[in-house]
Amino acid sequence: MTDSTPLKVALLGCGVVGSQVARLLIEQAEDLRARIGRPLELVGIAVRRLEVERPGIDRALLTDDALALASRTDVDLVIELLGGIEPARSLILAAIGAGASVITANKALLAEDGGTIYAAAEQAGVDVYYEAAVAGAIPIIRPLRESLVGDEVTAVVGIVNGTTNFILDKMHTDSADFGAVLAEAQELGFAEADPTADVEGHDAAAKAAILASLAFHTRVNLADVDREGITGVTGEDIAAAKEMGCVIKLLASATLSDDDTIAVGVHPTMVPVAHPLAAIPGAYNAVFIESRHAGRLMFMGPGAGGSPTASAVLGDLVTAARNRVRGARGPAESTYSGRAITPPGKVASRYYVSLTVHDEPGVLAKVAATFAKHGVSLQAVRQESTGAQARLGVMSHLALGEQTDAAIAELGGMPEVHPGIAVMRVQGA
Amino acid sequence: MTDSTPLKVALLGCGVVGSQVARLLIEQAEDLRARIGRPLELVGIAVRRLEVERPGIDRALLTDDALALASRTDVDLVIELLGGIEPARSLILAAIGAGASVITANKALLAEDGGTIYAAAEQAGVDVYYEAAVAGAIPIIRPLRESLVGDEVTAVVGIVNGTTNFILDKMHTDSADFGAVLAEAQELGFAEADPTADVEGHDAAAKAAILASLAFHTRVNLADVDREGITGVTGEDIAAAKEMGCVIKLLASATLSDDDTIAVGVHPTMVPVAHPLAAIPGAYNAVFIESRHAGRLMFMGPGAGGSPTASAVLGDLVTAARNRVRGARGPAESTYSGRAITPPGKVASRYYVSLTVHDEPGVLAKVAATFAKHGVSLQAVRQESTGAQARLGVMSHLALGEQTDAAIAELGGMPEVHPGIAVMRVQGA
Repeated sequence: MTDSTPLKVALLGCGVVGSQVARLLIEQAEDLRARIGRPLELVGIAVRRLEVERPGIDRALLTDDALALASRTDVDLVIELLGGIEPARSLILAAIGAGASVITANKALLAEDGGTIYAAAEQAGVDVYYEAAVAGAIPIIRPLRESLVGDEVTAVVGIVNGTTNFILDKMHTDSADFGAVLAEAQELGFAEADPTADVEGHDAAAKAAILASLAFHTRVNLADVDREGITGVTGEDIAAAKEMGCVIKLLASATLSDDDTIAVGVHPTMVPVAHPLAAIPGAYNAVFIESRHAGRLMFMGPGAGGSPTASAVLGDLVTAARNRVRGARGPAESTYSGRAITPPGKVASRYYVSLTVHDEPGVLAKVAATFAKHGVSLQAVRQESTGAQARLGVMSHLALGEQTDAAIAELGGMPEVHPGIAVMRVQGA
Repeated sequence: MTDSTPLKVALLGCGVVGSQVARLLIEQAEDLRARIGRPLELVGIAVRRLEVERPGIDRALLTDDALALASRTDVDLVIELLGGIEPARSLILAAIGAGASVITANKALLAEDGGTIYAAAEQAGVDVYYEAAVAGAIPIIRPLRESLVGDEVTAVVGIVNGTTNFILDKMHTDSADFGAVLAEAQELGFAEADPTADVEGHDAAAKAAILASLAFHTRVNLADVDREGITGVTGEDIAAAKEMGCVIKLLASATLSDDDTIAVGVHPTMVPVAHPLAAIPGAYNAVFIESRHAGRLMFMGPGAGGSPTASAVLGDLVTAARNRVRGARGPAESTYSGRAITPPGKVASRYYVSLTVHDEPGVLAKVAATFAKHGVSLQAVRQESTGAQARLGVMSHLALGEQTDAAIAELGGMPEVHPGIAVMRVQGA
């Protein structure tokens, strides 16, 4: 019954995750063989610099000609761990063209140009698996793509970037500004020397696009994501969140709007402490799903790191390999619903608005009337006087982005209101 | 590209879940068709009593001849929602024999005799999916069977029975005994008139067997599960748990022992409040997974109910239908590792032991020496005097079941120790 002809595997990239994958392919060879029904054989590893020392990895496997390796027609499975758009895209397309199934962790590429990859795979009759692209080892792609495929997902909201979650945690503990904590996170190795992709929300935005595509059976690209990072979050915002019984998290969210369009964004957001996402600590990730029939589900686990990501890659590798052995195929991309993206101004959210005003009779009434005029109804108001001026903290009910923007624009022009109005979204309980 | 020939679906059972599935097959027909690539056609529903009123369900579909329906060779997909061993087993085997893929929520059958079902499916080249059998709509089967298949799972620990979780929650809130809360739960509809399957842990044990099989690539049957229900949990146990910073949860667990055997059990267990499982409320379910590479993952969501269970069934239905359309197959049962079951006496756990002793000098030393003699080392001891007698609460480090049993047997024979020693497992932090 068991066929002992190996399935050939090529690995593109041998960094933290790649070297771990290479090691596990050897260490767990017997288990993998039993689970797949045929052995796996690692036939090549494409690296940028051949001369780097790589303990435990056979030098004979290394090549700096990634395109030649990816194009081999005798290879069954290609694992792409280079990241970035090019040369990753060309290499993946070459692998698909040569008949290999592809396992990738490349969120940037899938969010930017996933459609090209999926179409090529569909035409060639091969699989593309990418569990490692979102939330590390937490199984989230497969549950969305398969487990919930008989349901109607209405919202996916997640903490999908560990670096920013760590920084925001620390800002809460220390009641500190973003800048002070970033330096410390970099020193501890929790943030990169160039932290832009994390702190500006680009990484989370790519993941939001991928989750939105799966949840709503629509191709959602990076450019569709309304993105805001955490660099503007201040110690005052943190204090205001605490006052309102919330913590600030960088949330990636994809929700179905009332008009059946998809609101997809990344924003620092006040999360009520009773919400399950509020308690997700440090470098953990968590994804919260609401669906019409299954209700509210949450998945949590380590969001990054070599081992967890390698686990996700190997899970996909075994699945794709089993498909090869059984002559089967995984699910293709599902974009039949072709929903439009909700314009940011039409996205409904609760908002927290913080402003400083002259402390004189009638100002609060004027501020409240301005919100009301633009259709923003208020759930809670806090006022704190500090002599000649007062700080107002206002939490709205659900309002559209454009309503809130209009109210704030008008408030900003009022002589009683000081410059510098802070606005932040608030997650529903 | 799209084939409009319907895939034929037969439904066995039309209770809370079945009627919901039937309704959704009609309501969501267009979405399901788009996701599968072919339409689904519900061709028959087997029920026990034809005469019952079933709103929204076409009477022409009903039959009381389940075997004839399950045996139809023109049916592609059979959904079994009868529960219990027979006739469910015979009907599933008939369906498989007639060439249909099977979707079932039948935990009892899979735990009792899953091997027969999987072997028949493998031989016939059809799929068996059963996401709804464990933890309702929470995707847990698919993550274990596919996402983590490249990893080494070391432990699966879960709250998989909502009724007992609700009762234990209430016992904590009211500091009440089991009996008092059961009556209330029955009145509220959270416990059945005959609550045996839930409160004695049979339901959780079936789920534990299924999870253990998947996690450890070994056939684990219901009889392998060391089972203890919650009927013996007292208000005093609850109070002791609170004192130790814990809550009591009914945990289903499957863990890899040091000698590579599988410890699988269901026990009321003290869970430290900092553990993610401690916070799972009421009728929710949660499953916590530890694996060598992915680390610690947790999945939570509604554990029961018609809609969540129907969501899980439909997810499986779409997956099995897609496989039909693509000529593909889902993963078969994986039992290659064939691990043995750890005998209960050899299972390592922390224990909490509560006993009443004469309050006289030297008794505590004697008790401590007895634990030490049997190899049970103590992590924490609490003593509370009430005049002539004292209550001792003792929390051990990891110890084997037989070591703890031996220590307790010897303590029970000591004249200084009163009858009635209470023992409970304690979950690691």
